[in-house]
Amino acid sequence: MPIIRSVTREYIGKPIRCKAAICKKSGEPLVIEEVELDPPKSWEVRIKILCTSLCHSDVTFWKMNSSAPTARFPRILGHEAVGLVESVGENVEEVKEGDLVVPVFLPNCGECIDCGSTKSNNCTKFGNKPIRDMPRDGTSRFRDMKGEVVHHLLGVSSFSEYTVVDVTHVVKITHDIPLDKACLLSCGVSTGIGAAWKVADVEKGTTVAIFGLGAVGLAVAVAAKQRGASKIIGVDLNHDKFEIGKQFGITDFVNPSSTSNEKSVSEVIKDMTNGGADYCFECIGLASLMTEAFNSSREGWGKTVIIGVEMHGSPLTLNPYDILKGKTITGSLFGGLKPKSDLPLLAQKYLDKELNLDGFISQEVDFKDINKAFDYLLQGKSIRCIIRMDP
Amino acid sequence: MPIIRSVTREYIGKPIRCKAAICKKSGEPLVIEEVELDPPKSWEVRIKILCTSLCHSDVTFWKMNSSAPTARFPRILGHEAVGLVESVGENVEEVKEGDLVVPVFLPNCGECIDCGSTKSNNCTKFGNKPIRDMPRDGTSRFRDMKGEVVHHLLGVSSFSEYTVVDVTHVVKITHDIPLDKACLLSCGVSTGIGAAWKVADVEKGTTVAIFGLGAVGLAVAVAAKQRGASKIIGVDLNHDKFEIGKQFGITDFVNPSSTSNEKSVSEVIKDMTNGGADYCFECIGLASLMTEAFNSSREGWGKTVIIGVEMHGSPLTLNPYDILKGKTITGSLFGGLKPKSDLPLLAQKYLDKELNLDGFISQEVDFKDINKAFDYLLQGKSIRCIIRMDP
Repeated sequence: MPIIRSVTREYIGKPIRCKAAICKKSGEPLVIEEVELDPPKSWEVRIKILCTSLCHSDVTFWKMNSSAPTARFPRILGHEAVGLVESVGENVEEVKEGDLVVPVFLPNCGECIDCGSTKSNNCTKFGNKPIRDMPRDGTSRFRDMKGEVVHHLLGVSSFSEYTVVDVTHVVKITHDIPLDKACLLSCGVSTGIGAAWKVADVEKGTTVAIFGLGAVGLAVAVAAKQRGASKIIGVDLNHDKFEIGKQFGITDFVNPSSTSNEKSVSEVIKDMTNGGADYCFECIGLASLMTEAFNSSREGWGKTVIIGVEMHGSPLTLNPYDILKGKTITGSLFGGLKPKSDLPLLAQKYLDKELNLDGFISQEVDFKDINKAFDYLLQGKSIRCIIRMDP
Repeated sequence: MPIIRSVTREYIGKPIRCKAAICKKSGEPLVIEEVELDPPKSWEVRIKILCTSLCHSDVTFWKMNSSAPTARFPRILGHEAVGLVESVGENVEEVKEGDLVVPVFLPNCGECIDCGSTKSNNCTKFGNKPIRDMPRDGTSRFRDMKGEVVHHLLGVSSFSEYTVVDVTHVVKITHDIPLDKACLLSCGVSTGIGAAWKVADVEKGTTVAIFGLGAVGLAVAVAAKQRGASKIIGVDLNHDKFEIGKQFGITDFVNPSSTSNEKSVSEVIKDMTNGGADYCFECIGLASLMTEAFNSSREGWGKTVIIGVEMHGSPLTLNPYDILKGKTITGSLFGGLKPKSDLPLLAQKYLDKELNLDGFISQEVDFKDINKAFDYLLQGKSIRCIIRMDP
């Protein structure tokens, strides 16, 4: 992949016209059109996207019924990316033109009580508001050629040649890292790694069960393997995922469709682990699966980590007596990682060969073919499809 | 209180006849009668009880409908106590005649994988069986004067001048500690202290909410105060508990009966703590209260510790999105303490004045008046009533 390491200075302070893939209606193919993008306001950064990738959450927003509270159309999706800073607004000192940055959906202001604590990545100042278009003033920087507003997604909107992102969502990253690997660190893969390393703190010789072998679940496996887990059980309805999962460290596989008539998945996992896995991860977002993950965890010290966003708003139901027997359930957004301090560390671990990111990229397409990325994901053929912007 | 530091050797190897308070039928006053107690079998210890106290769990078993799976009548209740080793069975090397010991409902074999781990107090070898009369062979050592079996409770049965306990349930303790304080460490008070120190690991300057201000909840308060918690909120339906609670470190009080029409308890606690308590403890055993405790905990790092045994078998229901926002729920039996290693440490902390056990003893009665202890507890007048055995 050619590496672009420069941006033009000719549009600083002015709107920029560029190509973006617009989601005009729920579930319809994206349409690549020219859009006009404002210069960054105070605390904002305008970024030239170099490559981006497609996460399941983009598909969730793409499919979202237009009456849903967080649905916005037309919208520019995309929240996993890497790019170069083209220009910065007032009060931005943290990054400058030409810096390589990863935009992240999770804010990290660095000033609030949570950002100041080692125990939280839940930015209190900017993270506790409902999902909105732009971080501070709620207005869009994008307009289509008729002058109509095009909405952002999760404060990022990376399916565009340029985007504007609040500085609290921007992480400066070393130029040494290959662009596709930097892009991977923007959301799903980091979430899985953080969940295993920071939230669960998986230890050598322990057993791990992972529910859902998408990019997040496979990243949990990579991180658990790196920590020396002795058994890493993948749970997925797709049999092909076992062969794929082996490359990421999965040692054993349970397919719920093959076990449901005899034993529950948790009973099977208890048998495989002599009483329950030390660490269980739910990477799908189904309350019933969260309960099954919890039930698969070991009495005494079993820890279940919730990473999936429950997709139906269903409550989670647990047996309180299991908790008395020493089980823990916890969770996090973005794997408990603080974007600004933890992503550069993950990048360095990749460069130091302490973190293997090979294999997550299943396809690469040009920006003009972005709808193919959706096809691959919907057909279950994709872990991550990298979308290359035209140079 | 006179301290008895010796036992006679005349019954070693033989049955002993002594007085015991027998629960003959559910909910009826205990009847003090002579019983015959076998000598200890292999791995067992016969203990002369010096003093014992009444815990809510005794009342639960006392009231238990005779058709319940764990109901046994006639039965000798009591599981908080301190006593002297009268004699030991074969294979018992850990304690000898004359040692001061605290019997504990939770086994601690010291050999299984859980006993060998710092992360669990859930003895896998002896703790994962249903509650039973005697630890190893399931038979009783007690007979009444007609020769009929009298059942044990939780492997302890301390409402008797003498009892036989499996060595895995016996903790040797320093003779320096006053008997009433040693007795307190046997169950409820240690549970609260362990939950605050070992399970939650409460830190200086944090906020704490305690649901239920019985002995366990008040012990959480003592331990949280010792750790330097800045605000300790007690939640109880009994208004008198606030005045009592102040002596144990409670700084603020919420009575659910006064708040339910306007705001939920969790909303009130969030207001009092600028977003939620750092640590919440459920010390009653009601699933709905466990949910309320969880809802009262802070996003980012709030930890809820379940100590109460759910009394109706109801499931616990949580909002999965709260877990994603960094909340944790966990729990333990006996406050996560390992009886054999942790109780001597608590005793030492008491002797070093690092742990204040004053105030937990609300009444003292002679053994012959044991039914008064039930009256005090049922009338809400008792934290712990110490029952003195006749010398």
